[in-house]
Amino acid sequence: MKTSLFSYPTPFTPPTTEEDELSFLRLARSRRVGATTFHRLLKDHGSAAAALDALPGIARAAGSADYSPCPPGVAKAELSAGRRLGARLLLPGGPGYPADLLELPDAPPVLWALGRVDLLAAPRVAVIGARNASSLGQRMARKLAEEMGRAGFAVVSGLARGIDAAAHEAALPFGTIAVMAGGLDVIYPPENRDLASRIATGGLLLAELPPGTEPQARHFPQRNRIIAALARATLVVEAAARSGSLLTARMALDYGREVMAVPGHPMDARAAGCNMLIRDGAVLIRGAEDVIEAMGLEAAPRAEPRPDPRPSPQPAAAAKAGPMAAVTGLRARLLALLGPAPTPEDTVIRDLGIDAATLSREVIGLEIEGEITRHPGGLLSRG
Amino acid sequence: MKTSLFSYPTPFTPPTTEEDELSFLRLARSRRVGATTFHRLLKDHGSAAAALDALPGIARAAGSADYSPCPPGVAKAELSAGRRLGARLLLPGGPGYPADLLELPDAPPVLWALGRVDLLAAPRVAVIGARNASSLGQRMARKLAEEMGRAGFAVVSGLARGIDAAAHEAALPFGTIAVMAGGLDVIYPPENRDLASRIATGGLLLAELPPGTEPQARHFPQRNRIIAALARATLVVEAAARSGSLLTARMALDYGREVMAVPGHPMDARAAGCNMLIRDGAVLIRGAEDVIEAMGLEAAPRAEPRPDPRPSPQPAAAAKAGPMAAVTGLRARLLALLGPAPTPEDTVIRDLGIDAATLSREVIGLEIEGEITRHPGGLLSRG
Repeated sequence: MKTSLFSYPTPFTPPTTEEDELSFLRLARSRRVGATTFHRLLKDHGSAAAALDALPGIARAAGSADYSPCPPGVAKAELSAGRRLGARLLLPGGPGYPADLLELPDAPPVLWALGRVDLLAAPRVAVIGARNASSLGQRMARKLAEEMGRAGFAVVSGLARGIDAAAHEAALPFGTIAVMAGGLDVIYPPENRDLASRIATGGLLLAELPPGTEPQARHFPQRNRIIAALARATLVVEAAARSGSLLTARMALDYGREVMAVPGHPMDARAAGCNMLIRDGAVLIRGAEDVIEAMGLEAAPRAEPRPDPRPSPQPAAAAKAGPMAAVTGLRARLLALLGPAPTPEDTVIRDLGIDAATLSREVIGLEIEGEITRHPGGLLSRG
Repeated sequence: MKTSLFSYPTPFTPPTTEEDELSFLRLARSRRVGATTFHRLLKDHGSAAAALDALPGIARAAGSADYSPCPPGVAKAELSAGRRLGARLLLPGGPGYPADLLELPDAPPVLWALGRVDLLAAPRVAVIGARNASSLGQRMARKLAEEMGRAGFAVVSGLARGIDAAAHEAALPFGTIAVMAGGLDVIYPPENRDLASRIATGGLLLAELPPGTEPQARHFPQRNRIIAALARATLVVEAAARSGSLLTARMALDYGREVMAVPGHPMDARAAGCNMLIRDGAVLIRGAEDVIEAMGLEAAPRAEPRPDPRPSPQPAAAAKAGPMAAVTGLRARLLALLGPAPTPEDTVIRDLGIDAATLSREVIGLEIEGEITRHPGGLLSRG
């Protein structure tokens, strides 16, 4: 177990009963109780139940006469919803909750976990990067994630398009952890529904927010802190100069984790963030061997891929439609994938995970609009 | 003037007269007198003339009864040949000889210089890299060289194909120094003859070996030490894992110079050497600004491009044919330029500096051999 900045689990009663669980959840879901406040209250009052009792008095003292904490019924409904999905609730200091997260002053007060909770006991690396990744970037993400999986690491990422999805996909046979910005059952982007449902069985989905929560812009940095803190090293594969991946990398540095980045040519805008990180001291990585060397590991344990669990027709994590229509997503992803150099359609089909007919439909529209050019020989380019 | 590891010019009489010049040249060209021995003899005997007098005795003591130093006639012939080219002879401790070179224990005993000797007084950076550079690499070399030239630096390189030639070409309007492996008048590779003759007027050609000397394999590392020592920083743009550019970079480090490298994607073999250098501590550079920042310069002097001097029909540095037929060179360069992703013919024509008919002839042969594939739309790819 790692040394923790916090003195968990000593300063309060660790959650053991169902009653404790309910109190933790009520405290976490009470209005104006953010993660940092949650931990402060827990520490000051010794238990979640005692903190809940104290909360109205604290609010009154601060001038809010009508404050009341989250009602038990709301927390019970969340517990039922989580259990219907087949998820487990992990609480700070309780079983399964990753000790690494306890180092954060704003450690998630609760975590919903669906799938292989055992993966939280494995050493972990994050593989993150651009949503509008190039084909080369996605290939690199797959290679790194698979090799790190084979080396015995659980690969953590954010289930986004591009690099994240490629990393999860390649690491799934070994074990991958997707940290979600919204609820466990709200898959964003929607095109990753199938991937999410396979991770829910063969890997692990984690969410700090209640089931059913639609992710909003402010949720993503919160989610990113969990990725950065969970991973011993954050590997950035393609990231633009101002991008969420860079923010996650900075958080990882703040938390004392290692940051490593895949370099790229300076004339490729998608390499700008990674090159910047390397200039700022991140380890330049060319593959998993560099990662393992930088971590000071002589030889890592070898993992065998697990047999692919068939996704059930009604997966436990039944997906809701995200805020963006899938068709718009495809169009943006297709444009992002293409550059001035012609790319074979086969590569595009593989990278987008779509069939030839779907690609063809999309291409026709974009060709008419002058956004892409079709070259004889099955090649496509931008502009 | 830089502090020198050597105590030049104190320990021997600096060359001032034509007689001194002849003695220096005779000592330098005497059998078994390498650069290190040259300096040892000069130091031990106080002048080149005294060293020449002592040489037969030293040889006899070492068991060579029949040793005689380079005859005056041979050295006189070299002096005449150099002067016919319009070149100047630079001698250690003498006017024009770059002080930075005196830091080497094997500083060149003589240097032939053709063109703007004033460039040796400017701050200098080397821009070097792969002969089989990609289009992107050549673009980067041109950009870096031009920007460094504009910032007031003389750009040093080796007049090789690929990165070297691109760097010289772009830096020529500001001032560029080509250090040659053979004699000043033996341009290798032959396709750089025109470039060399323009450098001879608008820039500076330097050669350690006598005019007329065909460069041999062993001459290249000797030449590279001059590049590494002349430049305050060596910038590597594309280099494979085991390449001459890396050896030059290592020499630069040995000499206490800065080494900087342009990163590239790990799946691009031509980036392997640069990425390795960055992992080993070289500064990652994305452009001239990064170079200037790493050199600790606030703002460098701005240079204006000089008007392009028209090359004379019979250039001073009349070229001899190099050891490799130009046609074989073209074929190798064409193959090197192409990768699995189709590249427009126009780009290839520009990068190779050939006309469409020449390219077409070459492509037909390579297509028949299955080495390259022609795609509709004027695109070529490897394999």
